[in-house]
Amino acid sequence: MTTNAAATTQKKPQTAITPTRAEDFPGWYQAVIKASDLAENSPVRGCMTIKPYGYALWENMQRIFDGWLKDYGIQNCAFPLLIPVSFLAKEAEHVEGFAKECAVVTHHRLEADGKGGLRPAPTAELEEPYVVRPTSETIIGDAMSRWIQSYRDLPMKLNQWCSVMRWEMRTRMFLRTSEFFWHEGHNAFANHEEAERDCLTILDMYEKFFNEYLAIPGIKGIKTKDERFPGANETYTIETLMQDGKALQAATSHDLGQNFAKSCDIKFQDKEGKEQFAHTTSWAFTSRMIGAMIMIHGDDDGMIMPPQIAPQQIVIIPVLKGEGDDAVLDACTTLAARIKAAGVRVQVDARDERTPTKMWDAIKKGVPLRIEMGAREVAEGKLTHVRRDIGRDSKKTETVDEFIANMPGILSAMHDDMLARARKFMDERVTDVKSLDDLRAFFKDEANGGFARMDLSVIDDAGFEAVKKDLSLTTRCMPFADKGTKVLIGRAY
Amino acid sequence: MTTNAAATTQKKPQTAITPTRAEDFPGWYQAVIKASDLAENSPVRGCMTIKPYGYALWENMQRIFDGWLKDYGIQNCAFPLLIPVSFLAKEAEHVEGFAKECAVVTHHRLEADGKGGLRPAPTAELEEPYVVRPTSETIIGDAMSRWIQSYRDLPMKLNQWCSVMRWEMRTRMFLRTSEFFWHEGHNAFANHEEAERDCLTILDMYEKFFNEYLAIPGIKGIKTKDERFPGANETYTIETLMQDGKALQAATSHDLGQNFAKSCDIKFQDKEGKEQFAHTTSWAFTSRMIGAMIMIHGDDDGMIMPPQIAPQQIVIIPVLKGEGDDAVLDACTTLAARIKAAGVRVQVDARDERTPTKMWDAIKKGVPLRIEMGAREVAEGKLTHVRRDIGRDSKKTETVDEFIANMPGILSAMHDDMLARARKFMDERVTDVKSLDDLRAFFKDEANGGFARMDLSVIDDAGFEAVKKDLSLTTRCMPFADKGTKVLIGRAY
Repeated sequence: MTTNAAATTQKKPQTAITPTRAEDFPGWYQAVIKASDLAENSPVRGCMTIKPYGYALWENMQRIFDGWLKDYGIQNCAFPLLIPVSFLAKEAEHVEGFAKECAVVTHHRLEADGKGGLRPAPTAELEEPYVVRPTSETIIGDAMSRWIQSYRDLPMKLNQWCSVMRWEMRTRMFLRTSEFFWHEGHNAFANHEEAERDCLTILDMYEKFFNEYLAIPGIKGIKTKDERFPGANETYTIETLMQDGKALQAATSHDLGQNFAKSCDIKFQDKEGKEQFAHTTSWAFTSRMIGAMIMIHGDDDGMIMPPQIAPQQIVIIPVLKGEGDDAVLDACTTLAARIKAAGVRVQVDARDERTPTKMWDAIKKGVPLRIEMGAREVAEGKLTHVRRDIGRDSKKTETVDEFIANMPGILSAMHDDMLARARKFMDERVTDVKSLDDLRAFFKDEANGGFARMDLSVIDDAGFEAVKKDLSLTTRCMPFADKGTKVLIGRAY
Repeated sequence: MTTNAAATTQKKPQTAITPTRAEDFPGWYQAVIKASDLAENSPVRGCMTIKPYGYALWENMQRIFDGWLKDYGIQNCAFPLLIPVSFLAKEAEHVEGFAKECAVVTHHRLEADGKGGLRPAPTAELEEPYVVRPTSETIIGDAMSRWIQSYRDLPMKLNQWCSVMRWEMRTRMFLRTSEFFWHEGHNAFANHEEAERDCLTILDMYEKFFNEYLAIPGIKGIKTKDERFPGANETYTIETLMQDGKALQAATSHDLGQNFAKSCDIKFQDKEGKEQFAHTTSWAFTSRMIGAMIMIHGDDDGMIMPPQIAPQQIVIIPVLKGEGDDAVLDACTTLAARIKAAGVRVQVDARDERTPTKMWDAIKKGVPLRIEMGAREVAEGKLTHVRRDIGRDSKKTETVDEFIANMPGILSAMHDDMLARARKFMDERVTDVKSLDDLRAFFKDEANGGFARMDLSVIDDAGFEAVKKDLSLTTRCMPFADKGTKVLIGRAY
């Protein structure tokens, strides 16, 4: 969160990203995505294309978390992309919350429209329309009703990595798009205690993952009734805070009670031979966490990738002058091999571009550690490295051997610093507020963000709804730390 | 391809699967999928649900091949699930071949239908309908038209792992379903030579992957014009043969020439500053290869998993008698840890089921190697193992240390035997045929399968179409081995 690097040269604009965060945060956000080459808007309304650099980040997130899920006994499956409309209608609260904005499949064939184009063939209208899955509780519940017969089949722990669609009118890449990527876990248990423990275990896994890999802190808690998942008895959440003071729901786990078990007929014979409904849970995090990483860690020069999840942890930039370039390139390749052998993701930027262009590209993409190596460094067996989050104040020249020994420590220190900075930022923005008037005053200032913490009784206050509506506020959660006595309120993505 | 295991007990039916392959091959295929718990039909017409055991197999396939793709310089992305109908119409031949049967999205909202159900909201009809992607040449081509500007941007090598939909009226799990899983690669090059080399390199990668992991042999060649991908200049293919004598297209790579580059406007400035259209390719294999593994390797007792790709390579069955069971279970757990440490995928079947049930489940699922350990084996530091493909003739008791040393050899010998058997089966069923009368006579016998090899001139013979139509034959490929002088003809999945 420094602009030192940009200030080193007079020819550059003061920052690599225009507008800056202070000038226009949403504009800055879009500019960072473009400059870092993570994604772009697609020609399909409301849908994004995740470009190679962004998808490599998502793949890292998938790989790590999928391993944890498997250690927890989760089995991956693939359920159909389409869901019969009648399935959505099964769970009354669920349909109320979800059915509104979906991609609806009504035909199974196109035909020539006589004007050189194509149209849905009237003869191929489906008897029952489908929706592209907005979430899969109902179709997985239908499968569980066949797969679960006896207590011996429980617990059943399923997951799928896929994309889902919820038609959105106002979209923002990663944060809110009609198609987005996620994993969705769906577990079934013999009793409520196990289901509840599952929700909390998963929430802890999310927190650990966000802390240890994304350098994102969070506040764990329970959603108030109005913010619950449609059809859930309880929704557990991790809330976090962006640099503009807006809250973001990072992940949720839902205790669905026996609601979906009853509407989907998920029954089992218990040990006494008695038929019972199962207790189910569902839980997810999505590709919006990439948006969260940008908005929590990025600065006015672009993205800053958390080192433990970064697609490239280190970029090596050969400083080429014409003479002696082969030796420099060779040394860079040799160095990259040593770094790779140590288990660190590294790339040599050997593109046919000027050195400053390569440096600025690395900065904008947020590569955690940048190494520069020119003829002099090679002759001396040395290299120069710079941490992306600190910039030139972290610039250090040392021998290759010293660097290889220090490298894991540099990366983990950067991670720790990023997490600590984000945590400090968030913690400092939890403000105790006593009355609705104070709440109104606090958020009236557009620049005032963060969480207002109030006694839980506020949610029953007759005037609360009006304040929320006037200032676009929502209740984010009842934090575990406050043992259910408080509620956090904020503006949210 | 032995039923020895089933014949060992009088109480069992002669085979674990009913019907047998000889009695009813399609019925046997469905029964194997059910008995092995790989997948099931879903409530969505024509779509399957891939169950945990089937999806673990697909994940192994993805993991291995994705690593190869990355070594080849491919970058993974995510393109939208939906494609505007106007995009499909861009490439004339492409639309002809693909537009007919698609899932068409026409609305973006549901509403209550007044009868307790839901219907597409008439006020939410889309101006332009979308289809769920049947393949992504057009939408990826659109992205490439923005991403490629200069020869420096080439080659561009992209891939995505996803599901696609092509509405099917007659479906068969894994082989032909409305939704199926695949990877789709899309590359762009500066000239035709590189594009052609890419097609052939990818085809070699497919062959190596099928040989070394799926134990599936193939015949590489070129598709005749009528069997080409819609919009391609040339389609390269690997054809293989099922136990019922039917052919199956295992994978294809397409030389798209400049056709999609022209319709999608993928242009670049060459080194001389001249604007040129790129040369593109596309290539895929799909989840139907799971169907191919079943139909190539399975026997009348169920699935036989090729050891190098099997979700579980070894299952350990504790033979429990009541007394001393704890020691047996402990020994099984210790053994599993040793096997796992050697990098082999292993599971202890500790379910509360009878030993014969566990043995038959392992057989039906096709776990390559089954280990049985009872109190006597534990006391002697021994174990008994059986190869799934051979059955009791391979039964061997040896010390745990001996087994650990022999294990990699046993698994790789089983793989080699499976590939050799499948190759012999296929090679023996390539029959040279001289005339259309002979072709008719050869395939008239329903039981006669395999490939008829004819001089390429047959495709211009006026009577060829009628024979193909009468006997449901297609040209499979012009094999590389015959240097373009011959064509293989067969019945195909």
